[in-house]
Amino acid sequence: MKLPPQGAARIEAQMAFLCEVDRLKSVVRATTLCDGSRRENSGEHSWHIALYAMTLAEHAAADVDINRVIKMLLLHDIVEIDSGDNPIFGAADQSAVEAKEDAAALRIFGLLPAEQSHEFITLWREFEAAKTPDAVFAKSLDRFQPPNQNLASGGGSWIEYDVSFETIEARVGSKVARGAPRLWAYIKPKIQNWFAQNR
Amino acid sequence: MKLPPQGAARIEAQMAFLCEVDRLKSVVRATTLCDGSRRENSGEHSWHIALYAMTLAEHAAADVDINRVIKMLLLHDIVEIDSGDNPIFGAADQSAVEAKEDAAALRIFGLLPAEQSHEFITLWREFEAAKTPDAVFAKSLDRFQPPNQNLASGGGSWIEYDVSFETIEARVGSKVARGAPRLWAYIKPKIQNWFAQNR
Ligand SMILES: [Ca+2]
Repeated sequence: MKLPPQGAARIEAQMAFLCEVDRLKSVVRATTLCDGSRRENSGEHSWHIALYAMTLAEHAAADVDINRVIKMLLLHDIVEIDSGDNPIFGAADQSAVEAKEDAAALRIFGLLPAEQSHEFITLWREFEAAKTPDAVFAKSLDRFQPPNQNLASGGGSWIEYDVSFETIEARVGSKVARGAPRLWAYIKPKIQNWFAQNR
Repeated sequence: MKLPPQGAARIEAQMAFLCEVDRLKSVVRATTLCDGSRRENSGEHSWHIALYAMTLAEHAAADVDINRVIKMLLLHDIVEIDSGDNPIFGAADQSAVEAKEDAAALRIFGLLPAEQSHEFITLWREFEAAKTPDAVFAKSLDRFQPPNQNLASGGGSWIEYDVSFETIEARVGSKVARGAPRLWAYIKPKIQNWFAQNR
C-alpha cells in the first residue's frame, strides 16, 4: 500500500501531536503513587482517571455521556506540557495560569490537522469551563483521585502542603460533591478519620 | 448525604479495583519515552495509546466503535500487574503467559462488583482474542506505538533486542497492517530508513 501525499501529510500531523504529548509522562504532580514510592506523572494520572470514569460512571450527579467524559480526561492535562502541573493546594495566580494554559492548548492541539485541532481544543475548553454535566463530572473525578492516593500512601500532599480538613472540604470536597455527591459521601469520613488520627 | 450500606459496599469494591490498578504505573516496558530518558511504564503507555485511538480512529481498516476501542485500551495491560510486560521481541512461552494473564484478569477485575467484573473481563478477552474489528484495531495501535517511540529515541528496543527489519515486519508490521494498513504504509519506510542508516 502506498499513501497519497495528502494522506501522508495528515498522518504526519497526527503523529507530530502524538509524539509531542509523550512529554506529559515527564510532568510531575504533587500526588504520589498509592504505595508512596514516587510522585505520579500527568500521563499515568490521565490513564488512571479515565479508568475512574469508566468504573464510576453510575455515580455522576447528572446524565452524562461517559465516552465524552473519558475523551475529556485523556486530554485534560496535556496543556501541562508547557505550563506544568498546578497543585490544588498551591497558591498560583489563576489568571496567569489560564493564559499560559490557553496558549499551550493552541500550540499543542494546533499540531493536529485543523478540524481535529478545533475538536480537541473545544473539548478541552469545555472541561476547563466546568459547566456542562460531562465537564462537571470529569472535574469531580480529577479532584476525587488525589485524596484516594493520599489515603493509600499515608498522607501524601496533605502532609507536604500542611493542609487542614477545612481546606480540603472547600477546594476538593465542593467539586467532588458537585459532580458526584455519592463519591464525596464515601470519602469524606475517611478523610476526617485520617485527620483525627494524624493531625 | 449519607450512603446506604449497599451503596457504600459497591463503591468500596470499585475503589479496591481502582487502587489496585495503580500498580500498573510500576510495570516497566521495553520501550522508552520518546526522549529516551527512561523506560515507559504500562500505565502511561495505556493513556498514550488510548489517545492514539482517539486521534487515529479514521485509519481503522474496518468500521469500529472508537469508544469501545478506547475502553479496551484503558484495560488492555492491567493483567501485567501480576504477569509483567511481555516484550514483543522476547521469547516467552506463549501458553504459560496466557494462563498467567487469565488468572490475573480474574483476580484483578474480580475486585469489582460482579456484573462490572464480568463486563471488564469480557472486554479484555475480546481484545486478547483479536477477532472483532474493534479488537483488531486496538491491537494494531498497541503495535504501532512502540516503533514510533523507537524512531524518536534513536532505536530503543530494536537495539536492545538486536532485531532485524524482517522480524519487525513479521511481528509488528503484520498486526499494524491488519487493523490499520495506512499506518503501516506510513511508518514502514521510516523503519526501513532507520535500519539502512544504523544497521
Ligand atoms: Ca491537573
